[in-house]
Amino acid sequence: MTHDTTATSASRRRFLTTTLASGAGLAATSFVPAAARAQGGPDPLITEVQPWASGFGDGVDAHPYGMPIHFEDDVIRRTVSWLTADVISSINFTPIHALDGTITPAGCAFERHHSGAIELSKPDYRLMINGLVERPLVFTYDDLERFPRQNVTCFLECAANSGMEWGGAQLNGAQYTHGMIHNMEYTGVPLRLLLEEAGVKPEAKWVLAEGADASSNARSFPLEKMLDDVLVAFKANGEALRKQHGYPVRLVVPGWEGNMWIKWLRRIELGDQPWESREETSKYTDTLTDGTSRKWTWVMDAKSVVTSPSPQAPITHGKGPLVITGLAWSGRGAITRVDVTLDGGKSWREARLVPNANPLSLHRFYLDHEWDGSEMLIQSRCIDATGYVQPTKDALREIRGLRSVYHNNGIQTWHVAADGKVENVEIS
Amino acid sequence: MTHDTTATSASRRRFLTTTLASGAGLAATSFVPAAARAQGGPDPLITEVQPWASGFGDGVDAHPYGMPIHFEDDVIRRTVSWLTADVISSINFTPIHALDGTITPAGCAFERHHSGAIELSKPDYRLMINGLVERPLVFTYDDLERFPRQNVTCFLECAANSGMEWGGAQLNGAQYTHGMIHNMEYTGVPLRLLLEEAGVKPEAKWVLAEGADASSNARSFPLEKMLDDVLVAFKANGEALRKQHGYPVRLVVPGWEGNMWIKWLRRIELGDQPWESREETSKYTDTLTDGTSRKWTWVMDAKSVVTSPSPQAPITHGKGPLVITGLAWSGRGAITRVDVTLDGGKSWREARLVPNANPLSLHRFYLDHEWDGSEMLIQSRCIDATGYVQPTKDALREIRGLRSVYHNNGIQTWHVAADGKVENVEIS
Repeated sequence: MTHDTTATSASRRRFLTTTLASGAGLAATSFVPAAARAQGGPDPLITEVQPWASGFGDGVDAHPYGMPIHFEDDVIRRTVSWLTADVISSINFTPIHALDGTITPAGCAFERHHSGAIELSKPDYRLMINGLVERPLVFTYDDLERFPRQNVTCFLECAANSGMEWGGAQLNGAQYTHGMIHNMEYTGVPLRLLLEEAGVKPEAKWVLAEGADASSNARSFPLEKMLDDVLVAFKANGEALRKQHGYPVRLVVPGWEGNMWIKWLRRIELGDQPWESREETSKYTDTLTDGTSRKWTWVMDAKSVVTSPSPQAPITHGKGPLVITGLAWSGRGAITRVDVTLDGGKSWREARLVPNANPLSLHRFYLDHEWDGSEMLIQSRCIDATGYVQPTKDALREIRGLRSVYHNNGIQTWHVAADGKVENVEIS
Repeated sequence: MTHDTTATSASRRRFLTTTLASGAGLAATSFVPAAARAQGGPDPLITEVQPWASGFGDGVDAHPYGMPIHFEDDVIRRTVSWLTADVISSINFTPIHALDGTITPAGCAFERHHSGAIELSKPDYRLMINGLVERPLVFTYDDLERFPRQNVTCFLECAANSGMEWGGAQLNGAQYTHGMIHNMEYTGVPLRLLLEEAGVKPEAKWVLAEGADASSNARSFPLEKMLDDVLVAFKANGEALRKQHGYPVRLVVPGWEGNMWIKWLRRIELGDQPWESREETSKYTDTLTDGTSRKWTWVMDAKSVVTSPSPQAPITHGKGPLVITGLAWSGRGAITRVDVTLDGGKSWREARLVPNANPLSLHRFYLDHEWDGSEMLIQSRCIDATGYVQPTKDALREIRGLRSVYHNNGIQTWHVAADGKVENVEIS
């Protein structure tokens, strides 16, 4: 097992040597191409160098709020029509196969709604805190802006992410298998401060958070979590939350399943027992092999996936230097290590993990590999700060069976063919 | 000088007391309003709590790439028509007064072009490295994707940011006085790796980087910087660079002035002396009081600004709890401290600085203040890891005079009136 910190001088030299020797899949072409020299063709300076623009471009008034260039029109959220009965209670997927780094731009950060993304203005917004409190309160949006704020960068993963894969490889693309996730920098008010304002009664042990959408999505939380790191958030990546992500106010529940990050946050109630809402009984519980279900499985366990190469991001350049990259995350603490195998688990190499000071953020990893052009079975496996090791899918299935939905954090396998095409496969 | 880490229990209690006692600018209203109780009005539960949505919202297929909700239509880049002769060689400004946290969404990150934002596709893209190298090379976009990548979150500030303020307070808004800045997470290839591929000759000491736009913006760099932390970047905040920010490839030059972050990067040339291009002689040099000019002033010195309250973000809620917030940054290392004065510099309080593991990133600070409703002269003053203290404007003017343009990192003053309106003012 070797540790790639960054490319060594030796590997960089090999890069050039290989590409020139192979003649195919050139990674860096000589300034004066052999072909041009041999044929006495046009000045290679003119044919090879990037021409200057021959005219002016867009002025600074063209796009008060900018969008991606049209060449990137395929880097979008996508949905799967057969997954749910209607698009208003459905999900779309972040194009993680096409992104890099760790921040997810809001425009392509996945959405999950139970009755559609509703429109709710700041002047109309109200947040009630009631139940076992000394003083029930209703906060306006302007009220919330007057409390001390915090910032946190953390991932939001839907509990159902990779849920279609319990029974075997179903969906051909990292966007579909692992794209129910995004990672943004949130700004908001610690819920703790609002609860202290209302005065939590000693008998209060549980908290209900409820959204204003027609589905009235509601979840029970142990009070300790709500007093710990939960934010009543109004900004993501610096700007107002997008409508799809709960504008103007949502809960941010670092490390916990996305369904609990209540959007269009309407009401916080304190009680002495959980509410057993629909979304924590008939849904968002975990079927086991014996037919019973676990509930209160809130934390997202350590998980990783190679985002490129992947079915939607095949290798197009032939053998030689290849950047293998992916994401890793855990709701229990920072990712401390990611290993990658290219042979279906026979041997592993430690990936280069980009340091991330935000423990519950997505982490980016890279493996800089010299590909010999033969087929590969690529997997990634991560370890978090608790020492937990991401399990195989089969290890999970022993406990959870093949008909579960949520909390599938098993190791994903991509088969890379000699032509660079990639498929979602199962290995045992 | 007190250190606000977060609100104390005492200050939170005062929050409620004040707002109930004052009767105006309520920050948290009682669950059952006194007025409703007195008048036997409608059920306060119905009038006060956020109603549930009465219908469905948008489905998950509505916005493959999302935009901000229409309520936020004023959070956009803005330009100033009188600043330059034409919008193709001009600048617009990030709406920093309306943002929070540290990440700037690409859609509202400021733009500066010298001949407009050009369209350049990945297949058409070429990067040449020539001059004093062993082997001149031309890289395609696909070539660049095969080199080991790094991620860095850092600010880009135009050297001319706050440049209109040398002669006195000119522009009424943080967006205009300090909005030539943005902060994104970049992904790219260390230029060092590409230079090693080409083989730097021992006599090479300087590097020219040149863009493909019609202005052929070009700057000279000392070789050491190029071998240190400069990236040939293709992604920002996870996705492809926006057209306005140099798609498909730009330089990322952490801590250095924005003009050097060459967009639509076309050519890297190595030489034994600087090129003395237009953009480093007639422009981007710093006029001094004696009429001479400094050149090679690349690094952006420590600077800060209160973004709210500010002229475009007045106080609308009356006296009581007030969140004062702003940004601080330095090209020389992390911000270690920010102080805020509310009385024009007579007394200072240490602001709550949000930890940021990326030293050359924007840093967010907060001061949670109990406003008594009287007028204020608000300033922020930062210190960076080198111990450098952000200077007053007057201290800078002693050296630079009133007719300079670039590198104005002086302390900014906002006057807050008793009615909450804010103005850009000068104090001596």
